[in-house]
Amino acid sequence: MAERSDRSSNDENRMNPDSEAKEKKGGSRSGEDESNGLSVERNFESQGVPSWRRQLTFRAFAVSFALSVIFTFIVMKLNLTTGIIPSLNVSAGLLGFFFVKTWTKVLDKSGLLQVPFTRQENTVIQTCVVASSGIAFSGGFGSYLFAMSERVANQSTDTQSAHVYKNPSLLWMIGFLFVVSFLGLFAVVPLRKIMIIDFKLTYPSGTATAHLINSFHTPEGAKLAKKQVKALGKFFSFSFLWGFFQWFYTAGDGCGFTEFPTLGLKALQYRFYCNFSATYVGVGMICPYIINISVLLGGILSWGLMWPLIETRKGHWYPADESTTSMRGLQGYKVFIAIAMILGDGLYNFFKVLGRTLSGLYHQLREGEMSHVLPIANNSSLENPQVSYDDQRRTQLFLKDQIPTWLAVAGYVTIAAISTATLPHMFSQLKWYYILVIYLFAPTLGFCNAYGCGLTDWSLASTYGKLAIFVIGAWASASHGGILAGLAACGVMMNIVSTASDLTQDFKTGYLTLASPRSLFVSQVIGTAMGCIISPCVFWLFYKAFKDLGHPGSEYPVPNGIIFRSMAELGVEGVSSLPKHYLTLCYGFFAAAMIINGFRDLVGKKWARFIPLPMAMAIPFYIGPYFAIDMCIGSLILFIWEKINKTKADAFGPAVASGLICGDGIWTLPSSILALAGVNPPICMKFLSRATNKRVDGFLGS
Amino acid sequence: MAERSDRSSNDENRMNPDSEAKEKKGGSRSGEDESNGLSVERNFESQGVPSWRRQLTFRAFAVSFALSVIFTFIVMKLNLTTGIIPSLNVSAGLLGFFFVKTWTKVLDKSGLLQVPFTRQENTVIQTCVVASSGIAFSGGFGSYLFAMSERVANQSTDTQSAHVYKNPSLLWMIGFLFVVSFLGLFAVVPLRKIMIIDFKLTYPSGTATAHLINSFHTPEGAKLAKKQVKALGKFFSFSFLWGFFQWFYTAGDGCGFTEFPTLGLKALQYRFYCNFSATYVGVGMICPYIINISVLLGGILSWGLMWPLIETRKGHWYPADESTTSMRGLQGYKVFIAIAMILGDGLYNFFKVLGRTLSGLYHQLREGEMSHVLPIANNSSLENPQVSYDDQRRTQLFLKDQIPTWLAVAGYVTIAAISTATLPHMFSQLKWYYILVIYLFAPTLGFCNAYGCGLTDWSLASTYGKLAIFVIGAWASASHGGILAGLAACGVMMNIVSTASDLTQDFKTGYLTLASPRSLFVSQVIGTAMGCIISPCVFWLFYKAFKDLGHPGSEYPVPNGIIFRSMAELGVEGVSSLPKHYLTLCYGFFAAAMIINGFRDLVGKKWARFIPLPMAMAIPFYIGPYFAIDMCIGSLILFIWEKINKTKADAFGPAVASGLICGDGIWTLPSSILALAGVNPPICMKFLSRATNKRVDGFLGS
Repeated sequence: MAERSDRSSNDENRMNPDSEAKEKKGGSRSGEDESNGLSVERNFESQGVPSWRRQLTFRAFAVSFALSVIFTFIVMKLNLTTGIIPSLNVSAGLLGFFFVKTWTKVLDKSGLLQVPFTRQENTVIQTCVVASSGIAFSGGFGSYLFAMSERVANQSTDTQSAHVYKNPSLLWMIGFLFVVSFLGLFAVVPLRKIMIIDFKLTYPSGTATAHLINSFHTPEGAKLAKKQVKALGKFFSFSFLWGFFQWFYTAGDGCGFTEFPTLGLKALQYRFYCNFSATYVGVGMICPYIINISVLLGGILSWGLMWPLIETRKGHWYPADESTTSMRGLQGYKVFIAIAMILGDGLYNFFKVLGRTLSGLYHQLREGEMSHVLPIANNSSLENPQVSYDDQRRTQLFLKDQIPTWLAVAGYVTIAAISTATLPHMFSQLKWYYILVIYLFAPTLGFCNAYGCGLTDWSLASTYGKLAIFVIGAWASASHGGILAGLAACGVMMNIVSTASDLTQDFKTGYLTLASPRSLFVSQVIGTAMGCIISPCVFWLFYKAFKDLGHPGSEYPVPNGIIFRSMAELGVEGVSSLPKHYLTLCYGFFAAAMIINGFRDLVGKKWARFIPLPMAMAIPFYIGPYFAIDMCIGSLILFIWEKINKTKADAFGPAVASGLICGDGIWTLPSSILALAGVNPPICMKFLSRATNKRVDGFLGS
Repeated sequence: MAERSDRSSNDENRMNPDSEAKEKKGGSRSGEDESNGLSVERNFESQGVPSWRRQLTFRAFAVSFALSVIFTFIVMKLNLTTGIIPSLNVSAGLLGFFFVKTWTKVLDKSGLLQVPFTRQENTVIQTCVVASSGIAFSGGFGSYLFAMSERVANQSTDTQSAHVYKNPSLLWMIGFLFVVSFLGLFAVVPLRKIMIIDFKLTYPSGTATAHLINSFHTPEGAKLAKKQVKALGKFFSFSFLWGFFQWFYTAGDGCGFTEFPTLGLKALQYRFYCNFSATYVGVGMICPYIINISVLLGGILSWGLMWPLIETRKGHWYPADESTTSMRGLQGYKVFIAIAMILGDGLYNFFKVLGRTLSGLYHQLREGEMSHVLPIANNSSLENPQVSYDDQRRTQLFLKDQIPTWLAVAGYVTIAAISTATLPHMFSQLKWYYILVIYLFAPTLGFCNAYGCGLTDWSLASTYGKLAIFVIGAWASASHGGILAGLAACGVMMNIVSTASDLTQDFKTGYLTLASPRSLFVSQVIGTAMGCIISPCVFWLFYKAFKDLGHPGSEYPVPNGIIFRSMAELGVEGVSSLPKHYLTLCYGFFAAAMIINGFRDLVGKKWARFIPLPMAMAIPFYIGPYFAIDMCIGSLILFIWEKINKTKADAFGPAVASGLICGDGIWTLPSSILALAGVNPPICMKFLSRATNKRVDGFLGS
């Protein structure tokens, strides 16, 4: 039971189902266009790329607005009922195409069409919708924001702090979102080039979405491209139907294929199972082998070795009577060790990039040259003679429309200043210096999350949010007001970190569809502004319409509300409340991540590709290794395919993977709508041990 | 629950997982060698075919004996525990190959090998083991024979007849088996040519076994053959592993993939579901499309329409308080309507063949010619100019070593005379004229069963046995001694009918591996003799070792014993005990089967292939349409494959299908051994409706 609620809360760490098989470090695989001369962009050569201003059409934003409202309703309802939010990136891309295409077709027939529908415009819509509906999640209406309310405070076991609450109100929520949501956006700008051009990160979901969008717009006559589109379509349908089929067997908690004990019930307990998820298998096909292996290794190390070992110290290392979801227990170890390792890797790379940038800047200054672009010395693909036509063209267009760094920095500083000034007025417990500290560290953490997401497709925004709850909560501890300070800090942190990963994904999609970064940036600004208004309004509607919203057992129990409140309550007790030894372990794993990275850089490229990445290893620490198993299956499929027919695997691998990811991604839309309409699946596929089955048969027979 | 025991009893109608995609009537598909010049036999041309005497080696029978003992133990234990007997044909072929190959390799290395191991010898082993271990099933140790015993009589609710029993004893059992088991063998001889050469029936299991044996013995250098062997091997492994994987989830009744409610729980109740059985899918790929469609149509007509309709007449057409397994209830309709339709089709074809044979004989006599071979006028493939090399060579060898018809007739008459004389001494209630009547009709029913099995791979031996229980039981009704007479008659009938289908399967395997019919006949005689001794001995061992054998709840409950006894008790009450209207319906379906067949012959070949076969339609009447759905999936796969690449589908289709059938078939061996060793699967995959799931969660949570 407890295991289960734990798992659903961990699903807040949403996976973005929508990327390119190239990665600087472990990249042993070539993309679809290098080794065999297959080029996507050659197919599109006949179509020009519109200027960034022309990519931003009115119709695009009209459609985006409509989709944003729909998606916000869906996400909000799920927030307030189950707390499990699927990613709607792919749906945004698909529906955006569908709406505009229908519209332009109608206009075209009546001879009124002036601007043709391009894939860049499609990407703009997708980006805008993601930015806008993302706020329905990162706004915390089902988690930290609602956790501040009186209703949740009254449910808490901690009666002493029951008077510490802040009820939602439309005004302060909109204000709050406006001052915190734009920060991530500006923080992302300098990361963009580092993540996509220099690090060549995969961003599996972003790549998949781009493949989908490209496939929609493939011009007539491109033969291989048509075949690829066909392969994508086939696996898209398969993946969609498979998702549909699975749905029928998920009538209750723990039912269905998602918890299929492929490796036995004992292994399932430690989350070792393959759950036949088309998304993960596709992600595994897109991610480089070393990432898949790192994730699996991390899963084995944590859930196969460390957690069972720590469990044997129950009663010693942590109180025996804590529930499995309590941060005081094993869960505390999981969260903090994972964060320590991610931070270790993230910070290492952050400082590496920073160091190189500064040294480059220094050299440029000495040579009297100046550029708006941050020059990164390592591996710029333009310097690489082996780079493919696709990469060249994409990089060229990606670097053409720059967003000046000074604008990003100025924007960030301005908004940070405004919010540092205004937030303490909203939350009296949240001192201005807390906010300042968050804003100093947030870009670094945003970097970590965007980097991790680029490698493994997992955004751990809510995990970073929990970190903020603890750090700021403990700092503000003295009075119990720390609870609100912690929750508000969580909101600030989650918004920045979540935006950093989501928007870098979008930039990856833009990179692969030749959308201008400048138009994407504008689209994100508009999308975010929309989200800051739409989301609180939709929430307000629910809040006012359903008087028992937030009460357990009601139609809208908001399960994550109480979980976040409990964490905040724990946070204010400070480090002492956390289990023994956790700090030692965190230091250890932080150092280990740094050392492994240092080692990777030291031994050179040839050997580095055999050394696992700490960032990828850390993801399953908290989530469990099940998705790693699915990813490795995807990897294995591609490996065998490459052994049998390398040319075919290279040409169709990304299309197949994208089809798998997108089909499953689109299925989330009808499944969410079914859930909203109250249509429940009819059958529960349950897995029982032989002994339990006997008991159940006895129970059902009598 | 009742549904379930019903289903296990119906599993007595074993499916033989081991055939060729050619069928005279609906055959729209060509075999693997016609249209594209692919020939199996050309690969084997370099190897001579040994004379029929040289196919019968001592080592073959030594290995057969060893395997027979092993298989008899396995079948017997399953007889006495669950009553569900898998087919071990494929295992016999594989293990036979394995043992002799190891032996000949050792001899070859030491230079002592004189006779090389040929595929004909392999087929001889397989045939011998099938004949021998088949008796462990058709001997009725878990059904009719044990149903006569005192232990079962005491369990019966019919206290009046509790004194009517005959306890097992080693002597009379061996005697009984010897006088009844050889009859089927002689009855098969004249059927052989009709079924295999003239009707070109598929016998899916027999064909699959032949493909497996051919693949083991494929000479070096045959390129396409090697590829086919590889395809077979791949799907063999897949099918085996899939069986293995499924096993883990079958910890209890109704658990696992075999009852996967693919079409919903309501459909499952009426046995509409796809249970992902590799065997059925393979069978569907081998059977002609019209068979698959007939089976599906039959399933829809019966389980989709008729049974639900009859159910609405509950209380009117049959007593409302009867259990679902009672012959007085719906079950009675199912069994008798299925038999009526099968008999209608079978008799039509029987008399058609008989008529043509007699007219041919008459013409030959007039022309003063005489031949040992029964001349069949219709469609002899030798007359067909379009026949492939494989077919020519196979037919030539199949017809070379004849078993004279006079020998078969003489043998049948002699043994029938002996058993008519001796059986009344064993069972005083079984009058000699009952036996005579059975022996007059048995070959016709054997023809029906062998014909049906050739079309759909299902042998309905125990269904014919039930018919004998009713007819003879009702005839002998007066005193309650009719119970024993009915059960003994069931034994006589089942042995003949089951042998007829099993051995014709073997002849199909022999046809495809160029084994001489004469050597197969000898092998069957020896195998049957072995079985008549081994099976009773093994049963005796169990009977003496486990004193509570046959008691419900014990380790060996012999579940089918009481079922057969109940049927016999019902039988003696005569036709009156059966539900209302059943006779009318039986007449109707019997007539319909005749009419459809007449129509098929009337409209000519061109249209006949669109008219379903009544025999194939009748099989799911009793068993349920689930296997029809699997078969249609197999058919669909092949259809799509043929659309995409006809050449490849023709070349590899039979190999893939054989791999699927054989892999699943071999898995029965380890799974049986696991069951014998008491290793139970750990997990139950259960399907519950949402409401039930809630109750179960409540029960498990408390």
